[in-house]
Amino acid sequence: MKYLPESIQNLIDEFSKLPGVGPKTASRLAFYMLTKADSDINQLGQSIINIKKNLIICENCFNYATNNPCEICMDPKREKDKIMVVEEPLDVLAMLRTNYAGLFHVLGGVISPIDGIGPDQLRIKQLLAKLKKGGLSEVILSTDPSLEGEATAMYIAKQIEKDDDLVGKKILVTRIARGLPVGSDLEYADEITLERALEGRSKY
Amino acid sequence: MKYLPESIQNLIDEFSKLPGVGPKTASRLAFYMLTKADSDINQLGQSIINIKKNLIICENCFNYATNNPCEICMDPKREKDKIMVVEEPLDVLAMLRTNYAGLFHVLGGVISPIDGIGPDQLRIKQLLAKLKKGGLSEVILSTDPSLEGEATAMYIAKQIEKDDDLVGKKILVTRIARGLPVGSDLEYADEITLERALEGRSKY
Repeated sequence: MKYLPESIQNLIDEFSKLPGVGPKTASRLAFYMLTKADSDINQLGQSIINIKKNLIICENCFNYATNNPCEICMDPKREKDKIMVVEEPLDVLAMLRTNYAGLFHVLGGVISPIDGIGPDQLRIKQLLAKLKKGGLSEVILSTDPSLEGEATAMYIAKQIEKDDDLVGKKILVTRIARGLPVGSDLEYADEITLERALEGRSKY
Repeated sequence: MKYLPESIQNLIDEFSKLPGVGPKTASRLAFYMLTKADSDINQLGQSIINIKKNLIICENCFNYATNNPCEICMDPKREKDKIMVVEEPLDVLAMLRTNYAGLFHVLGGVISPIDGIGPDQLRIKQLLAKLKKGGLSEVILSTDPSLEGEATAMYIAKQIEKDDDLVGKKILVTRIARGLPVGSDLEYADEITLERALEGRSKY
């Protein structure tokens, strides 16, 4: 925009690239930064620049980590016979807030023909290899309850089922429940969610 | 959070300090940054660090600028007999998107006894000095239509009215209209907005 100093315009442009940040929010954030002390400004800037510093991908679970294998994989307190399959590292973060105490396996996405992502681009082979190594009694499929997430979960379940090396292992394959979010209003729920909530009902 | 690499936790903490960014949005933004190329990451980081570079406060209108007086104050195409009083530099940005072609005066806030901000902390004296210098025929009070914004506008209007040096100048003091936002639904408007829309009605 005319009159706007270049440094402010630059930051607005950069903030606008972030997901969920429109031009107005970007402007608000940029002008907010201007009200902060130089030390605060540098702290945010450096934190961004250093985000990948000392960061690696754990070769076991494929989550972001500082050690290989990562702290989650190596934690003696976690249950080593359960593994949860998630799409992205951020999903691990969400699941760590629950009581789940098993291991993780980050797929790196979902099967999505539109985006040209097939099963081979995901870490499905690595999951099957882990299951074959033994020691696992349950695989919890925690991909998103989206079209792609459901298809990916179904694909993985089939791969496990039809793998001759896994037949004798008796590995339980489960899928996280789809239903009404806690605290929500039944009347506002969509039909598919209600359908799933009904299908997944449990004895009271 | 346990297990989370320090660099990611740092960035989540920093993003969480931004206005309107909660811990979940901060996590989403941090993990989004991890998916970007190093050059993109550095670009955002540097833009933040450089935000105040070459930036000054215009000593005439008190907006952020790179020259003193700023490009707005010095633009020969702008109407020099109109001055708009706004709270913050971001308000100037918003008003520049309109057809308004006059000058600006950034107050630097609003009168807010709760926050310990009285008229002396704002640039009201500087506004009165400008009016006394002559050449201005209208002051448009564009503080927010909030309790504090209205009180500040009223205070400034009184100061202009009771100033002996300004009596002969015949300066028109106006206030931006409060009414229904364009595109909104009358049935959802609050009573005070409707009251103001009615008070400010114009001949059709």
